[in-house]
Amino acid sequence: MVDEQQLLQQTEEAPPIVPGPDSVGFVETKYATLFEADGLQLESGQSFGPITVAYETYGKLSPAQDNAIFICHALSGDAHLAGWHSPTDRKPGWWDEFVGPGKGLDTNKYFIICANALSGCKGTTGPSCTDPATGKPYGSRFPFITVGDIVRVHAALVQHLGVPKLLAVIGGSLGGMQALDWAARFPDQMHAAVCLASAARLSAQGIAFNTVGRRAIQVDPAFNGGDYYHLPDGPRYGLALARMVAHITYLSEVSIENKFGRRLQHSDKLAYDLKHQTEFQVESYLHYQGKRFVERFDANSYMCLTHAMDYFDLASAHGSLTKAFSATNARFLLASYTSDWLFTTAQSQDIVAALLNAKRHVSFVELESSYGHDAFLLEIEQLADLIQPFLEQTHASIRNTN
Amino acid sequence: MVDEQQLLQQTEEAPPIVPGPDSVGFVETKYATLFEADGLQLESGQSFGPITVAYETYGKLSPAQDNAIFICHALSGDAHLAGWHSPTDRKPGWWDEFVGPGKGLDTNKYFIICANALSGCKGTTGPSCTDPATGKPYGSRFPFITVGDIVRVHAALVQHLGVPKLLAVIGGSLGGMQALDWAARFPDQMHAAVCLASAARLSAQGIAFNTVGRRAIQVDPAFNGGDYYHLPDGPRYGLALARMVAHITYLSEVSIENKFGRRLQHSDKLAYDLKHQTEFQVESYLHYQGKRFVERFDANSYMCLTHAMDYFDLASAHGSLTKAFSATNARFLLASYTSDWLFTTAQSQDIVAALLNAKRHVSFVELESSYGHDAFLLEIEQLADLIQPFLEQTHASIRNTN
Repeated sequence: MVDEQQLLQQTEEAPPIVPGPDSVGFVETKYATLFEADGLQLESGQSFGPITVAYETYGKLSPAQDNAIFICHALSGDAHLAGWHSPTDRKPGWWDEFVGPGKGLDTNKYFIICANALSGCKGTTGPSCTDPATGKPYGSRFPFITVGDIVRVHAALVQHLGVPKLLAVIGGSLGGMQALDWAARFPDQMHAAVCLASAARLSAQGIAFNTVGRRAIQVDPAFNGGDYYHLPDGPRYGLALARMVAHITYLSEVSIENKFGRRLQHSDKLAYDLKHQTEFQVESYLHYQGKRFVERFDANSYMCLTHAMDYFDLASAHGSLTKAFSATNARFLLASYTSDWLFTTAQSQDIVAALLNAKRHVSFVELESSYGHDAFLLEIEQLADLIQPFLEQTHASIRNTN
Repeated sequence: MVDEQQLLQQTEEAPPIVPGPDSVGFVETKYATLFEADGLQLESGQSFGPITVAYETYGKLSPAQDNAIFICHALSGDAHLAGWHSPTDRKPGWWDEFVGPGKGLDTNKYFIICANALSGCKGTTGPSCTDPATGKPYGSRFPFITVGDIVRVHAALVQHLGVPKLLAVIGGSLGGMQALDWAARFPDQMHAAVCLASAARLSAQGIAFNTVGRRAIQVDPAFNGGDYYHLPDGPRYGLALARMVAHITYLSEVSIENKFGRRLQHSDKLAYDLKHQTEFQVESYLHYQGKRFVERFDANSYMCLTHAMDYFDLASAHGSLTKAFSATNARFLLASYTSDWLFTTAQSQDIVAALLNAKRHVSFVELESSYGHDAFLLEIEQLADLIQPFLEQTHASIRNTN
């Protein structure tokens, strides 16, 4: 049961973080300027730059330079994959349970890179950043970004870090789209691609939910067409609403039923009050999720990244999905989740069929989970059992070849 | 493909309606005042009234008074079930394809009644009506309404019309909830209940989507806490948003994919424009649905009726679902749809199990359809094949008994 007051109090009273032996510990976000003014030709045709990238790394690059893994984050993620920035942090990095010494992605073995996506709001150049040409935040003047643009900035970061070829690119959801695009766009830059709970193109239903979220932001008067950074508040209501509706799509019908059912939040009795917005626990939970999201995310970034998802269509970009995968020798691992209705098993199977058609090496499994789309963030042990042997085999095959 | 401009033009140029032989033709909405001031004790405990009910009837009550069927409409329906109000109408009643001479519900055989639900916005007392105590619209002072309150007003109308006992109560979705509640609340008032694509209680996911829709309305500044009738505009953006998100839940993933896929609305080429809100056909369709809904529906009614859905929990009201059905001798017919993810087959099966447990007469079928929740409004032939023999058997069993 989520109780906002309780949670806030817990946070305020929490003792300072002391990372355990399986934690990457305290980490710092680093920054690199990878493209100068107008230095990146976007897929839209527009030239854009300068571009600064916020990134974090965990573990060490091996002398053979063959153990680097790039993690592509999903819609609301960032470069802070694991560990803590400071002892007073409320939460560790977004995949901390999966990334650390001895964990699913073992930082004793692998050199792991994660970067905030282009157009994000956590350090990488995005709509809330200052446009050096005007000295003001980009706001509505920020360009339209695609998954391909995000990948090209990631690839430039890998080069900047002196990694000749990645062992793997791993991503879930929007991150999985990046892994697929990367393998198709730069076929020689990775030995393996891991694509979790994702698709080669967003479904019509996915576009539908995204357009509702964007509409909620756009009709919030505080959005002001995207230029709200000089105002006391941005489109808080609109962004919270967008998050609320999206959050429903990340849960399965079963998980939401099990987690909340029809239980009430504040009382045993129904209030019969039309003004009551959070009477059922599930209402309270969604409102809480919306509120928390507004504290950490930027509405323009949300617009950009959902548009990038909508536009993603690997088959259309390469003529066919088979053609998209025909140039790479990377090994592929795909996983879908039984209860994920936003990115379905059928969508993963389309990718598998194309990979087989292109005679690529592909492993695919539909994982049993009731957590819906969020399963790739939550079913950590299951994922470790899948990814660890896949990475080890990939690693071994490189060493045998060399 | 939906093109707003085209649709509007078509409408403007359309010739006057000439109803065919299988149409109920031109009909009039009638009005009855059924409760005087404070005459209805609501489930909340509050007394409310006067209550006027808007209703329509089709066909004729038989001399034996045994052929009356009450249709309970769903969230966005109204009393105008079939036929036309005037030759310039854009559309006939909401179930016109199913109701008429020789149609699925044959008005040559049956006397059919349909009434706008309490708290609605099409003639029955609702938030947009004038409160006789103040001379102003109720707005935020309209009371909290439950499915049971709606049913009690319907039951009063049946009495007012001089029908001793209904042959059947039929409803889908929120209308199905009313049919179930009616059978439990007034066990002797019907010979049969037909419950389509519905549930004995709304799921947590259903509450979640409703709370998002209400939130969209509440944060629209034009909502003004529910008192917007004196303002130039109501919460148009919020209500349209609520409809957009709800509309997605009425379609299946397959139907939305088949209907729209990733096709663009206005061009063959992607625009790469962050301001573009209706680039994909599915976006254009949803925006159109939102816009049209605002023209015909009231935001406060939407708040009331979604709250009524959220509160509906027949088992909780009667101790158990089996107890809820233990007093009635009505025959039940239930149908769910394979692709309906808002009101699932499992939810119908819960009702069937309780009816069997209560040793009631029940028929249940899961109908094959790709249309999702909307299937009960669209799969007319399938429904006719199901309901016609059920009604005939029910009718025959009454005549044999009498």
